Amino acid sequence: MPFSYLSHLECSECGKAFSPSLPQTICPDCQAPLFARYDLPSLAAQVPREKMDNIHSMWCWHVVLPVLTQEHVVTLGEGGTPLLKLERLASKYNLKALYLKDEGLNPTASFKARGLSAAVSKARELGIRQLMIPTAGNAGGALAAYASRAGMSAWIAMPEDTPKANVEETAITGARISLVPGVISDAAKFLQSHAEKGKWFDVSTFKEPYRLEGKKTMGYEIARDLGWEFPEVILYPTGGGTGLVGIWKAYEELLELGWLKNPRPPRLYAVQSEGCAPVVKAFKNGESDVAFWENASTHASGLRVPRPFAGKAILRTLRNSKGGAISVEEDSIRKAQKDIAQLEGIFTAPEGAATLAGLEILLAEGEIQPDERILLLNTGSGLKYLDTLQA
Amino acid sequence: MPFSYLSHLECSECGKAFSPSLPQTICPDCQAPLFARYDLPSLAAQVPREKMDNIHSMWCWHVVLPVLTQEHVVTLGEGGTPLLKLERLASKYNLKALYLKDEGLNPTASFKARGLSAAVSKARELGIRQLMIPTAGNAGGALAAYASRAGMSAWIAMPEDTPKANVEETAITGARISLVPGVISDAAKFLQSHAEKGKWFDVSTFKEPYRLEGKKTMGYEIARDLGWEFPEVILYPTGGGTGLVGIWKAYEELLELGWLKNPRPPRLYAVQSEGCAPVVKAFKNGESDVAFWENASTHASGLRVPRPFAGKAILRTLRNSKGGAISVEEDSIRKAQKDIAQLEGIFTAPEGAATLAGLEILLAEGEIQPDERILLLNTGSGLKYLDTLQA
Ligand SMILES: [Zn+2]
Ligand SMILES: [Zn+2]
Repeated sequence: MPFSYLSHLECSECGKAFSPSLPQTICPDCQAPLFARYDLPSLAAQVPREKMDNIHSMWCWHVVLPVLTQEHVVTLGEGGTPLLKLERLASKYNLKALYLKDEGLNPTASFKARGLSAAVSKARELGIRQLMIPTAGNAGGALAAYASRAGMSAWIAMPEDTPKANVEETAITGARISLVPGVISDAAKFLQSHAEKGKWFDVSTFKEPYRLEGKKTMGYEIARDLGWEFPEVILYPTGGGTGLVGIWKAYEELLELGWLKNPRPPRLYAVQSEGCAPVVKAFKNGESDVAFWENASTHASGLRVPRPFAGKAILRTLRNSKGGAISVEEDSIRKAQKDIAQLEGIFTAPEGAATLAGLEILLAEGEIQPDERILLLNTGSGLKYLDTLQA
Repeated sequence: MPFSYLSHLECSECGKAFSPSLPQTICPDCQAPLFARYDLPSLAAQVPREKMDNIHSMWCWHVVLPVLTQEHVVTLGEGGTPLLKLERLASKYNLKALYLKDEGLNPTASFKARGLSAAVSKARELGIRQLMIPTAGNAGGALAAYASRAGMSAWIAMPEDTPKANVEETAITGARISLVPGVISDAAKFLQSHAEKGKWFDVSTFKEPYRLEGKKTMGYEIARDLGWEFPEVILYPTGGGTGLVGIWKAYEELLELGWLKNPRPPRLYAVQSEGCAPVVKAFKNGESDVAFWENASTHASGLRVPRPFAGKAILRTLRNSKGGAISVEEDSIRKAQKDIAQLEGIFTAPEGAATLAGLEILLAEGEIQPDERILLLNTGSGLKYLDTLQA
């Protein structure tokens, strides 16, 4: 059994194939993300699903991850996060089954660890030594951690008002930091104009193919932990959208592998803040791509992404899954964060809390039914946002 | 197979037996902690060791935990933390095998989650509804989280200069908080004089028997993850000492169960700050109990425990294991924290970083050999101590 069944990379728009044995970025024709593809028929024939039961760490999914040899894996113990049943919160809303996947229990206390573990590992395998990233915060901390662990260099650009925790966790690793006025798109422009061409490899979301692969393991774990079946509904806080697209990719791969007990897809809902809701706007207007959101503003810093690079893939995912998109008020995020902490003892990131605020609206609209199984994706720990809490 | 093989509670000094079906505190004769005892011969005959392989969450050890029925378990996904090999740091010190167990990947980002998950679960099983705790910080956040999850009330007293993260994570759950001048012993006195007699159950370290049981699962995991064998050396940052005593209890239980491939015990070393080193002082002076340390002061707030309640058990553990005790300078803790972050990408709590500072001294003294397998226990995430970092 090979360590990985990776076969090739494929443009998410035109379908053209690219070699995974070279460093790759995006499709030069479409300027679109590349998706990793695996030899799933061979995998299905050679690896029993039961090998995946009860195992910890995202790298236990190595057969569907892009790193070809174990020695290149850069790990801090990411993944294998708990899927918690929220019985007290379910009672409050008269729901049959409400779950929360707590990605705060990752290295660097956020789901970004999965994507960067995969991207840094594959970069190491390809001989890349210097990595750069524009970030709303958590991805920068994660890149800094994995680059240090691998002995690689990292250059992180983030908005100057990024939560203090993200700046400190990055600084202590010795990574190079640039604090830039504006939002993540300004940080990206800063790196494009300041980094020497070809010297620093860009690990921005979807601008290289492997962060998506790390993130998709959330989908594999959700299905496995619910007995190889997806819940009817997943609410996902959407900034760059890698996890949203990744969970759908996991669904499609699991379907092809024949590992699902029940082939019904989950409906995926993107949740954004009213202060930065470009995906919601594009979805409601029936657009095929996401337009730039002017003056983006929200205390849920991970949602402050004015134009996700993979807008087309995000919108396709929402529509293919027959899900939707919803924006929520800043105050309702704060209230949801308190409700989850008081009823369930989980100190979520504001992004994670936003999913409960979104659920409340979608239940009221009749878009989600109380007897459906519903999963909230909490992307990180509230401990990383102490300077955004209000008394 | 019963859910738990719990048989009785036993005074750690006089050996007298107590019933676990009633709420218990300490031995009334000795004022000493009670230890939970299990029917290990029956367990060994009925449960194969292989059932424990590759499993996540501390409650997978339920057969050696004190809760009798699954429905009383209060869980947020604690335990199952990664055991990371530190190859770059090992190179720096010319060590053969250096490991770090990263307890920062727990709910509330610290090892306190294990102890409080066990104590709150057992309290729920015994019908207790109101819990109080004096804390240096992390235990308060953990109690608040598990009490909320269980729908119980919590009253938390902590020093007024406790790190902000501990105060905020406690406050958001709606728990009652008292900020008290002084250190943890002053917080304990505050609760003793302010809480109505019998109304609030005290879950202070070692003043009830079950936090120890949660903490001992660290020892079970260390042995399992190293192939059912302990490393030669474990360095443990010692405040209240529950984990230290717990890891030794796990060793003794595993030995009796016959689950260890190699019966050699680990040498346990307590690491403290020079600003609060009562265990080190008592150990070096050959005392049988720990005396109160005046004017305790250290930025590693979890080590600021002037007199651990289980002083005798801690000293016995260090001596039985043929380990030792070492105090380290405040600046060496800060330097170690940076070294671990820069070389391995792990943002440890200062308490966890202290173990590396201690290792450096013990290697120089020849007390630990470079060809031994050495494990550093990182008790939590550095994210909880941002206000103690220096530029
Ligand atoms: Zn293309
Ligand atoms: Zn006694």
